[in-house]
Amino acid sequence: MIGEPRLGDVFGEMIRDAYAVATGVGPRPLVGGRLPRPVIEIIERDDGLVNGAPTEHYLAGPADWQPYDRRAVDRVHGRTLDVGVGGGRIALHLQERGVPVTGLDTSLGALRVCRHRGLRDLVHGTVDEHAADGPRYDTFLLLGNNVGLFEGRERAPAFLAALAALARPGARIIAHGTDPYGTTDPVHVGYHELNRRRGRLGGQLRLRLRYRELGTEWFDYLVCSVAEFAELVHGTPWRLTDVDDTDAPYYLATLTLRR
Amino acid sequence: MIGEPRLGDVFGEMIRDAYAVATGVGPRPLVGGRLPRPVIEIIERDDGLVNGAPTEHYLAGPADWQPYDRRAVDRVHGRTLDVGVGGGRIALHLQERGVPVTGLDTSLGALRVCRHRGLRDLVHGTVDEHAADGPRYDTFLLLGNNVGLFEGRERAPAFLAALAALARPGARIIAHGTDPYGTTDPVHVGYHELNRRRGRLGGQLRLRLRYRELGTEWFDYLVCSVAEFAELVHGTPWRLTDVDDTDAPYYLATLTLRR
Repeated sequence: MIGEPRLGDVFGEMIRDAYAVATGVGPRPLVGGRLPRPVIEIIERDDGLVNGAPTEHYLAGPADWQPYDRRAVDRVHGRTLDVGVGGGRIALHLQERGVPVTGLDTSLGALRVCRHRGLRDLVHGTVDEHAADGPRYDTFLLLGNNVGLFEGRERAPAFLAALAALARPGARIIAHGTDPYGTTDPVHVGYHELNRRRGRLGGQLRLRLRYRELGTEWFDYLVCSVAEFAELVHGTPWRLTDVDDTDAPYYLATLTLRR
Repeated sequence: MIGEPRLGDVFGEMIRDAYAVATGVGPRPLVGGRLPRPVIEIIERDDGLVNGAPTEHYLAGPADWQPYDRRAVDRVHGRTLDVGVGGGRIALHLQERGVPVTGLDTSLGALRVCRHRGLRDLVHGTVDEHAADGPRYDTFLLLGNNVGLFEGRERAPAFLAALAALARPGARIIAHGTDPYGTTDPVHVGYHELNRRRGRLGGQLRLRLRYRELGTEWFDYLVCSVAEFAELVHGTPWRLTDVDDTDAPYYLATLTLRR
């Protein structure tokens, strides 16, 4: 197929370059070998929509965070797992505050950047794989819109079961999501309708990330309302105990492990 | 095909949004209906490479131009055709300086933005189509890397013939190009080799632009050395009379109509 990417560690290559731009560590990308090239994350959706987004935010310090991120870290207690640690911005901040924090990611390149930034406790893999390792946590962070990792109705119970297997008594999940249904943009409204017709949640995005010559496989990433989120949590080892929607359509959902 | 865009005026939609961000004219793109979304041009190459680039430069004033653009406009004389006028940055500057300038573009959306910015003389179409309209010019500008419009060995003679048909005696073409062969990046070096194996110039890019749900057809866009450019011009109604490579790998080539 013309124009098809090669499979690879898209996020890792991208965050390495973003880190080089931000710090001068490693060669930074150039246009024509001369002018700086901004590092852009490219996200394709299966209806043909594509979006490009700058990547600086993955490495930003607390002063440049959105307010919900600052409120999220204030909710952390005890041993903490940052699920999808990415460029490490959240975990680094917690480590500096003395919180015992572990960064989990499926991207080896992301973990390499985190290591270079000074994060001490890093694990490569999924939550399911990590559950077999034996550690237990008091707080799970799903920031950077990582409610997305629930994927949809099929994956959500297994995902929450894996987190329960990693949880100490009284553990909490603090998850950042976005309600996608406020839009009137026909491109999005039509996509939500298409999804529902094919038995998916409206905001159950089918995505692929691309960076330079690399692409990921297509994967599901969930953008859902608080009501949909509550429905997904129902009947799992977790209870939805708080919703902070001060910055709607963005929200922070807190789940607490059932006793 | 999963993830395939719809054909449409990619550049026009993109520049309309970039203009909205820059000026507040029209709705500006948002993330989640709340945070501003940067306007990013997405360029796919047929080997699977993809690049995203911010779009502000399409609307920038002279103070933010690269030095070769400022030197290019200083070379303008007489009635001028800006080939691929885009967001109108070059033509607007010339019009303000009193140069009789016409902006040509195949994007209706781009022409709409140019009109709104105050450009008076705008034509929709290709150089071939415009040649039939009867006007004649002293200067043709191919800036913003628009040596690319030569496409390759097949298109270059017809493109230069169309410009000759639009030319007054003594007319000149001022074209901005980039020598692509200084790179050691294996992704690019490998692509140049692939191109030569299939009988194309090394930097004869096969590209598609995408913005949101829209994509262009795949098209050729030429990035070539000065030597290759000279070879393409050989035997046409034009002579290569000057090369300014002060900012190598970028160059300004001046072609003069043969008497």
